[in-house]
Amino acid sequence: MNIVDLIRKKRNGIVLQEEEINYIINEYIQNNIADYQMSSLMMAIYFKGMNDNEIMFLTNAMIESGEVIDLQNIPGFKIDKHSTGGVGDKISIPLAPLVASAGIAVPMISGRSLGHTGGTLDKLESIPGFNTSLTTDEFRDQISQIGVAIMGQTEVMTPADKKMYALRDVTATVESIPLITASIMCKKIAEGIDGLVLDVKYGNGAFMKTVGDARSLANKMVKLGNLMNKKITAFITNMNQPLGEKIGNTLEIEESIDILKGKGPEDTKNLILQLGAEMLVLGRIASTTDEAIRILKEKIKNGDALNKFRQMIEAQGGNSKVINNFSIMPHAQYIVQITAEKEGYVKGIDAFGIGNMIANIGGGRTKITDRIDHSIGIELFKKIGNKVENGDLIANLHIRNIEDGAEIRELFESFFEISETSINQSPLIEEIIR
Amino acid sequence: MNIVDLIRKKRNGIVLQEEEINYIINEYIQNNIADYQMSSLMMAIYFKGMNDNEIMFLTNAMIESGEVIDLQNIPGFKIDKHSTGGVGDKISIPLAPLVASAGIAVPMISGRSLGHTGGTLDKLESIPGFNTSLTTDEFRDQISQIGVAIMGQTEVMTPADKKMYALRDVTATVESIPLITASIMCKKIAEGIDGLVLDVKYGNGAFMKTVGDARSLANKMVKLGNLMNKKITAFITNMNQPLGEKIGNTLEIEESIDILKGKGPEDTKNLILQLGAEMLVLGRIASTTDEAIRILKEKIKNGDALNKFRQMIEAQGGNSKVINNFSIMPHAQYIVQITAEKEGYVKGIDAFGIGNMIANIGGGRTKITDRIDHSIGIELFKKIGNKVENGDLIANLHIRNIEDGAEIRELFESFFEISETSINQSPLIEEIIR
Repeated sequence: MNIVDLIRKKRNGIVLQEEEINYIINEYIQNNIADYQMSSLMMAIYFKGMNDNEIMFLTNAMIESGEVIDLQNIPGFKIDKHSTGGVGDKISIPLAPLVASAGIAVPMISGRSLGHTGGTLDKLESIPGFNTSLTTDEFRDQISQIGVAIMGQTEVMTPADKKMYALRDVTATVESIPLITASIMCKKIAEGIDGLVLDVKYGNGAFMKTVGDARSLANKMVKLGNLMNKKITAFITNMNQPLGEKIGNTLEIEESIDILKGKGPEDTKNLILQLGAEMLVLGRIASTTDEAIRILKEKIKNGDALNKFRQMIEAQGGNSKVINNFSIMPHAQYIVQITAEKEGYVKGIDAFGIGNMIANIGGGRTKITDRIDHSIGIELFKKIGNKVENGDLIANLHIRNIEDGAEIRELFESFFEISETSINQSPLIEEIIR
Repeated sequence: MNIVDLIRKKRNGIVLQEEEINYIINEYIQNNIADYQMSSLMMAIYFKGMNDNEIMFLTNAMIESGEVIDLQNIPGFKIDKHSTGGVGDKISIPLAPLVASAGIAVPMISGRSLGHTGGTLDKLESIPGFNTSLTTDEFRDQISQIGVAIMGQTEVMTPADKKMYALRDVTATVESIPLITASIMCKKIAEGIDGLVLDVKYGNGAFMKTVGDARSLANKMVKLGNLMNKKITAFITNMNQPLGEKIGNTLEIEESIDILKGKGPEDTKNLILQLGAEMLVLGRIASTTDEAIRILKEKIKNGDALNKFRQMIEAQGGNSKVINNFSIMPHAQYIVQITAEKEGYVKGIDAFGIGNMIANIGGGRTKITDRIDHSIGIELFKKIGNKVENGDLIANLHIRNIEDGAEIRELFESFFEISETSINQSPLIEEIIR
């Protein structure tokens, strides 16, 4: 086999065979195929796509490029949730312990902030001492003991994906549904899961700008999951405004803890219950969504969910006093209050703009090597559809340098649109694909 | 400007601006844009194309990446010919001195054999002592003194093209009309020409397999030439069988000398006269093709053309005794004669197969670092449409190792098809685009 012939084949729209895809991935991780050949191939895939079998072969080859975590000795179903990323999306943090408290093992491998999107690992690291770099053995032991762990990818997991993802990022080949599908699924399957609930986001704060693109991706993922014998459900959810009321690392831990205490904003709470219920149904803890939601609400009410979060923090070296004392996390020195200057209805909140703004002022990363200031973020008191009176508090901007306050205020205001007429809010959950 | 944004732009089908194209080429030759980004961009160009202005900007940027030969002090028109490459295509070798003998300066920069195609430089090096590595000054002086020189690209000419071409070859992005057009034209314009006659070949022995593809390329080249204020004509010619009767380095020099002596095969002679006449018309030596052909025939008849070739050989250090003594060139030790085993008409000769076979048995290169045996080649006594009697000599295979004879014979026979019914030969010149 010859990589130039294989690139030409895909470029000409011909389906690649399993052994050809295996050859590509194996030779690429051994550096026998050059980055310039891989990027050319990935651009050809961007244009010519891949069928379901090609995506499955690619996913398998990427899984087999590294270590697969074996959780078979842990009884019960291992179910994870994955989001395609958004602004204010702290769902994983309360969801994982909540679902674990109901009897599902949740082996969750998460990512970091980049660009406009936040990262679960960075958020968890707002908690003093919290360690997201577990070994495979520590991860497995923790799931075995308390049913939940959240960590970053180990060095030896899916190296092909790491190499390909870094290359896609600098060659404008990120936005390819077959490549996105394989990249997400190989990492999830390498965790050792039996099932997966996907949150595929669309809108101005998501990678997929339209519901149509999100649906294409969701369909591919569900098909691939089924081909690979995994229980899988995809939710298509709206990311046309930030999720919840708090955005930023420390602030999102606060909101997550509030939710586990039965408080917190309705949109976030409801999405957590729906996603969690699906995990319980896939994991046969409940036979209907309604039953599952009842179980989860009870776990919040009786404190089991919060207790599971406490166990997880302690197992991963964090200071669990945070649960009753947010002040042990880093907080910004300055808060700029934004108030409404006219009355009306919130029409639009540019989540992409807000996400990037937070990254640019230190709360995220514009490049992979940036250091994060966990204290930076935004509290958002008005969401799309809300009535606003002149003078109402719209937001608190948590910033590092007061000199930048005026500029940040102006930028924030440009992302926030108030209309005179009332606005119907779109549903947060657009569709569920099983 | 950011290369990832520019790749994405082209990928999304948006036209690139002049300053963007300049940025890409400049940063690429300074290694600020990586090969993996360039290959991804070139694959996007393969799919999304470039409009005439983009091709012009690209060509200009590639020209300006290196040294441009200034021939303005040499009086008269400087006209070159370029072929897209085929099998047995020795046209440049007799054509350049023939046209120079009629008063046109011919500054010709040529290439080497690769894959199924031969290379003018390799052919000329069959002549003992012939030096194809001139400096820019030597090249200019020789054109000034005798009106013709043929050499390889200097190190400092169009470095962007060298780097891009090498990359295209290993990333399946060779077959892109905008990239082919810019690659050919930048090298030709950097020679310092006023005009160019192109021989765009189609058929089984050409890079363009169909006349439609050849026409698309020819049209693009003529448009680009006009946009860049160069006199330009493109011939579309048939390469569904090797050109002429001799294929291989020494053998093609023999045929070239025969042609300059007024001998040689009709197809080759006729194509040389037509291409040469167009060069004379572009260079205002003649006002009609007929007049130009009369001039060229006279230059062959009175020995001026052959004498010009002698001058060129001597100026470039070669042994001009070759003109009357072919035996000073390397010749193969073994000749395998192929005779017809049935009567009929020659229906097909797979030029691609023959070209690759010659490369594989040492007469060309399968990779850029291969050494060439100039003696290897084929004499072809029957061409498409010819009647063949049982026992007629079809070809002489000039080979290195007699042990391989049977295998090579069998392979050659598989490329040569004889039919019972008579065959109409397609015209050699399909179309002329001015």
